[in-house]
Amino acid sequence: MSNFWNKNVQKLDPYVPGEQPKDKKYVKLNTNENPYPPSPHVLDAIKQAVNDQLRLYPDPNCDEFRKTAADHFHLTPDQVFVGNGSDEVLAFSFMSFFSPENPVAFADITYSFYKVYANLCSLTPKIIPLDQEFKLPVASFCETSGGVVIPNPNAPTGRGLPLDAVKEILEANPDQVVIIDEAYIDFGGTSVVPLINDFPNLLVIRTLSKYSSLAGIRVGFALGQKELIDGLNRTKNSFNSYTIDRLALAGAKAAIDDDNYYRDMAQRIINTREHTAASLEAIGFQVIPSQSNFLFVSHADVPAEEIFHELRARGVLVRYFNQPRIANYLRITVGTDEEMGKLLDALKDILKK
Amino acid sequence: MSNFWNKNVQKLDPYVPGEQPKDKKYVKLNTNENPYPPSPHVLDAIKQAVNDQLRLYPDPNCDEFRKTAADHFHLTPDQVFVGNGSDEVLAFSFMSFFSPENPVAFADITYSFYKVYANLCSLTPKIIPLDQEFKLPVASFCETSGGVVIPNPNAPTGRGLPLDAVKEILEANPDQVVIIDEAYIDFGGTSVVPLINDFPNLLVIRTLSKYSSLAGIRVGFALGQKELIDGLNRTKNSFNSYTIDRLALAGAKAAIDDDNYYRDMAQRIINTREHTAASLEAIGFQVIPSQSNFLFVSHADVPAEEIFHELRARGVLVRYFNQPRIANYLRITVGTDEEMGKLLDALKDILKK
Repeated sequence: MSNFWNKNVQKLDPYVPGEQPKDKKYVKLNTNENPYPPSPHVLDAIKQAVNDQLRLYPDPNCDEFRKTAADHFHLTPDQVFVGNGSDEVLAFSFMSFFSPENPVAFADITYSFYKVYANLCSLTPKIIPLDQEFKLPVASFCETSGGVVIPNPNAPTGRGLPLDAVKEILEANPDQVVIIDEAYIDFGGTSVVPLINDFPNLLVIRTLSKYSSLAGIRVGFALGQKELIDGLNRTKNSFNSYTIDRLALAGAKAAIDDDNYYRDMAQRIINTREHTAASLEAIGFQVIPSQSNFLFVSHADVPAEEIFHELRARGVLVRYFNQPRIANYLRITVGTDEEMGKLLDALKDILKK
Repeated sequence: MSNFWNKNVQKLDPYVPGEQPKDKKYVKLNTNENPYPPSPHVLDAIKQAVNDQLRLYPDPNCDEFRKTAADHFHLTPDQVFVGNGSDEVLAFSFMSFFSPENPVAFADITYSFYKVYANLCSLTPKIIPLDQEFKLPVASFCETSGGVVIPNPNAPTGRGLPLDAVKEILEANPDQVVIIDEAYIDFGGTSVVPLINDFPNLLVIRTLSKYSSLAGIRVGFALGQKELIDGLNRTKNSFNSYTIDRLALAGAKAAIDDDNYYRDMAQRIINTREHTAASLEAIGFQVIPSQSNFLFVSHADVPAEEIFHELRARGVLVRYFNQPRIANYLRITVGTDEEMGKLLDALKDILKK
């Protein structure tokens, strides 16, 4: 604690990202990165942008990327906002649309950054418990008096939400912004982007970090009606005019353009996920049905925390959250078939002890 | 205005960056970019980082860059904070160290983003007028009761501040954070980085956008005692864990490492500045003595706004601020000798009309 910190900073409880280890090479299944490389077209586009023009500021309005994304999603460029990763887009959203007078609703088991943002913005969270099977209680999200944030599929559970459920929540909260965080949508979920023109209160947030295999260049974006996008721009332009650099802009545009490549990679990940889930069940794991690029699992006999440490000792990193209700679960990113083979070998070794 | 925006967003008055024109090729002297390309080593380092590893998150703590910068400035890595451009570092600083109870002091003529940040953070600005010659009234900055932000050299005037003046302000405000924004320090100013270990209240902010010719990759950093850096990290990690991408990290480290290259380029810019200043004076401009990579000038006979438009029509972009006290001034970035030749030709053409 320091006297130079203002009251807000003193009370912050910052997010802790999954570790990016440097001590040795791991099978890295802890931060939901894509196991496949970015599209070759993306790497080419970025390489071409590594030139003397880096002396110049990037386009602060990201016009080219917004046009590309708008075309891809059948929207208009003024319905697209770009940020430095979807985390920044989420931060700006919390800063723009939620107020201390009304609670912001999210699930008890969800992306843990939401409560950090609420704290940063001095908001009151309304924590809504998932049901016993980690399903989202749609009715409870219809009975709230403030904003709503829901990842679809949810993290760290991987469970997806049907379109009708989101529609119900949107209809029940016409005066409040409902954020649907679609970071993992492309691994089998149902996107609500087609609802945008019907619901002025809907903001969909996407990232290039997962599906587009570009966690290393930091681009996320929001899709919604112009009013919401304008609000995000007001906040962004009061914070930092140039949030997306020239290289990220070049790569991001190419990623949207090369969707065929990424659809194939996503299908591979889905295939690997399904047979890995079956293999995990075969050795005694309970596996939550996943529509994402990770599996949320629990073993009847061995505590998750113990498995986590044993896996780490065997060179396999997964994510363990020491939190109520999920302290006996592990979140395992779906890697390549080879990586999942190593995971399963390590788990069999741990379980036979 | 939208009902979905919270009260804070409704009252924001966002920053307007200098234009990045797309209609045609200009002699671009409006956003203080470096006219020389980034160091070849920097471009190489970035190119090498354009690889499959972009699928992975960057190091959220920027350890390598922080170590490199710490060595360069004779500090320790825990005295270095990295952000997505110095604007982001400034935003986090305002969010971390200033409070609504105390006014934050800055000059009437200064970087116009400061009042935007104050507004974003619901702070009360204490606006201190520069004197008639646009010199900073040091005594007034010693008589304030809250935080202080001063660019050295100041923008858009270009005037530098001697080390003793900053020291006096630091000594007079022991309980308040004093931010010295050294975006333009390497073009002839006197850095106060050597004071850091003596003053726990001193935060120095730097950017790679000007001196390092890397406006296109968005890296800025802060130097200060650990307590202040920890405060910035608390805010940053409540906002976005991964603000600097892999490519920017690679380029930023290489830029610090190749200081010889940049020192030569800065010397060229200083030389061009001095003979351009003399040439401008010779055609009737008043030129404020500059320690930066831009000149702040005014003409006795022709209004600045008129010159601005006439220059634009002739393919030369400079910056005009329609603000009290400086509405008859232009801020002109120092480009190459060739670019300044074009500027002077255009000006002579405008003045002879």
